[in-house]
Amino acid sequence: MREPILLTPGPLTTSLATKTAMLTDWGSWDSRFNQLTASVCHDLLAIAGGHGSHVCVPLQGSGTFAVEAAVANLVPRGGKLLVLAGGAYGRRMADIARYLGREHSLYTTADDTPPDAATLAMLLHDDPAITHVGLVHCETSTGMLNPLAELAAVVHAAGRRLIVDAMSSFGALPIDVAALHIDALVASSNKCLEGVPGMGFVIVNQASLAASRGNSHSLALDLAAQHDYLQATGQWRFTPPTHVLAALRAALDQYLAEGGQPARLARYAANAAQLQRTLGEAGLALFLPPALQAPIILTFHAPAHPDYRFATLYQAVREQGFVLYPGKLTSQETFRVGCIGAIDQAEIGQTGHVIISTLRQLGWLA
Amino acid sequence: MREPILLTPGPLTTSLATKTAMLTDWGSWDSRFNQLTASVCHDLLAIAGGHGSHVCVPLQGSGTFAVEAAVANLVPRGGKLLVLAGGAYGRRMADIARYLGREHSLYTTADDTPPDAATLAMLLHDDPAITHVGLVHCETSTGMLNPLAELAAVVHAAGRRLIVDAMSSFGALPIDVAALHIDALVASSNKCLEGVPGMGFVIVNQASLAASRGNSHSLALDLAAQHDYLQATGQWRFTPPTHVLAALRAALDQYLAEGGQPARLARYAANAAQLQRTLGEAGLALFLPPALQAPIILTFHAPAHPDYRFATLYQAVREQGFVLYPGKLTSQETFRVGCIGAIDQAEIGQTGHVIISTLRQLGWLA
Repeated sequence: MREPILLTPGPLTTSLATKTAMLTDWGSWDSRFNQLTASVCHDLLAIAGGHGSHVCVPLQGSGTFAVEAAVANLVPRGGKLLVLAGGAYGRRMADIARYLGREHSLYTTADDTPPDAATLAMLLHDDPAITHVGLVHCETSTGMLNPLAELAAVVHAAGRRLIVDAMSSFGALPIDVAALHIDALVASSNKCLEGVPGMGFVIVNQASLAASRGNSHSLALDLAAQHDYLQATGQWRFTPPTHVLAALRAALDQYLAEGGQPARLARYAANAAQLQRTLGEAGLALFLPPALQAPIILTFHAPAHPDYRFATLYQAVREQGFVLYPGKLTSQETFRVGCIGAIDQAEIGQTGHVIISTLRQLGWLA
Repeated sequence: MREPILLTPGPLTTSLATKTAMLTDWGSWDSRFNQLTASVCHDLLAIAGGHGSHVCVPLQGSGTFAVEAAVANLVPRGGKLLVLAGGAYGRRMADIARYLGREHSLYTTADDTPPDAATLAMLLHDDPAITHVGLVHCETSTGMLNPLAELAAVVHAAGRRLIVDAMSSFGALPIDVAALHIDALVASSNKCLEGVPGMGFVIVNQASLAASRGNSHSLALDLAAQHDYLQATGQWRFTPPTHVLAALRAALDQYLAEGGQPARLARYAANAAQLQRTLGEAGLALFLPPALQAPIILTFHAPAHPDYRFATLYQAVREQGFVLYPGKLTSQETFRVGCIGAIDQAEIGQTGHVIISTLRQLGWLA
C-alpha cells in the first residue's frame, strides 16, 4: 500500500525532494551548516518583507515553542498583552501569558466571528496598560482568516505592538511585517512552507528584540540570546534539528521555484475551491461564511445523521489512503480537511470523492 | 565527493536505515503515529530500567529543552538545586535555575576532577534547604565520566532527589534509574541512540512527576502536562517532530538488533581505545587521566607548536571527509573527537591517520 496522503494542517504531505534532503547528516559546528541556517533565515525574512527592519530567529521545537518565546521575550515583565481570542490558538496565547505570569486580557469572539477593528480600538483606548496585542492570523481550529491589515493598523495607530501567530498562513497568504508594523510574526517549518515539523521561527523587529534582552523566563526559549549567539558564531545556541532545517531549505527551494507566495496561494485556493465545490454538491456545508474562510484548512459541518461518528469516518477514509483532521469545536460536530502541503487538485479531488462515497456507504449521507 | 563522517558528540553520523525512516510523512493525530510514540517511550524506559517506577516523557527541541523542563517541573518553586558543575553542561544547569529563579548553589570542580562523594555528603548535610541535586553523567565538554552510582547513593542516603543529565551517555553506559533512585534522567535522540536531533526525553519517577503538576514556568516545557496529554490521548500536546521520532524508532530497532547497551558500549569502547592508541603513538595525549575518560568523546591536548590553530586543522581534515569538534576548555588548547554514532573501527582508524598526517603536513607534529 502507498503512504497515505495527509489532509492535515501540518504535519502535512511533503514532497519527496523535501524528505530526501534529510538523507545527509550535518555537523552543527560546520560552516556549511551555518550557511544553511543563514540562507533559510534570509529567505524567511524576505517572504515576510522584513529585510532592513526585522531579523529571523529560528527556534527548536514546535510552533508553540516559538509563540511562547515571542511572548516571553517581547512583552516586558511589566507589560500587558491583549489577546484576540477567536479560537483554540488564540486561547493558547493567553495560556502562555498565564504561565509566564504576564498581565493579560482577552477579547473573545465566537468561532465564526473575527475580531472587530472598532472594538479593538476601543479596548486599547480604555486600557492604557496594554502594551502588546496578540493575534492569530488564520485560526487553524476553524480555518478562519482574521483581518490582519485592518487590526494591525488599529494597533499601530494606538501606539501598541503586535505579535502575530501566522503559523498556518505564513508563506501562502501575503504578509508584510514592515508595512503592517508587526513587531513579531511567528510561524513554523511544517505548514504552508511544506517542510517537516521540528522548528519554528520568529520574524522580529530588530529594535524590539534588542530591547527584549533579559526578559526571557527560560534559557531554552530566550529569543534574544539565540539571536545574539547566531550573530556571533553562525550557530544555534543548542543542538539544532539539522535534518529538519535541511528539509526546510529544500522546501524553500521548491517554494521559490513554484513562484513564491502568489503561486502557493493560487494552488491552495484552487484546492480549497475544488473541495468546497465537491463536498458542497453532496450537501456538506462549510462551517464558516465563505468570506471568512482561508484556503488553508476547511471546516465542514458533519452530516446530520444521528449515528455519525468522526472516528469511524476517519478510519474508513484512512484505509483508503487519506488522513483527515477532527473538528476542534465543542459546540458543533465538524470535521476538517487541510488544503495545504504537497498536494494539488488531483489529491483534493480524490479526497472529496472518498469522503462522500464513504459517508454514503455508512448510510450517513443521502 | 562522499558525505563527511561526523566525529562529533551529536548530531553525529547516523545509519542510512535511520535516515530513510524519515521518507514517510506521519499524521500527528493518527493512531499509527501514536503507536510509534508509545513504542519509542516503552523502549527508552526499558533501556533506563524504569518500568514500574518511572515514565518516559518525550519533548520537542534539543536536549537542553528537556533538561530545563526537568528542572522546572521537579524542583518546586520553594526548592533548592545543588548543581555539581564540572564543565559547561553542569554550568548550563545552573544557568537554567537562574532563569527560573529557583534557589541553587554550585559545587564546582575542575575540568579534570569529578565531584567527590564525601564532599557531596558534607554539602547536603550542611544545607538542609537543598531538595535536589543536578549531575551531568558524562561531561561532553571534556568527555569526563562522573561517578554516578557513588554520587546517587549519597543523594539517596541524604533523602534528596537526583536529576541526571545523561545526554551523552544514555544508551551506551549502563544506568538503572530504579536501582540508583534517580528522580529524573534526561537524554536526547541524537547521541548514543544514534537518532537525528530534534527531541529529548525525560525518564521521570512517576510519583515525582505527579507531584510536579503546576510547577512549570512554561506552557511548552510543562512536562507533567505533556505526560497527562499523552496518557489521555496518545498524542503529543503540540506538533511532534514526526520524522525525528520515526528516525529514533528505526535507530532503536538497530540498537536492539546490535545487542543493546552492552554491544553499543563495546563498539564505542573499541573506537575510543583505537583512537587513543593511534593518536597516542603520534604523541597526542589525552587531556583526562584514562580512568576518568568515558568512551564517548575524547579530548586531546593540541600539539604544542606555536602556530597551531584548530580552525586550520578542522578545515584540512574536513576536506578529507572527517568532521572534528573543537575543544571547550578556556584554560588549555584542546580538540575533541567523538567515538559515537554509526561508525566503527574502520572510520575511527581513518580519522586518526588523517589527523596525524594533516598535523605533520602542517608542520605542527613531528
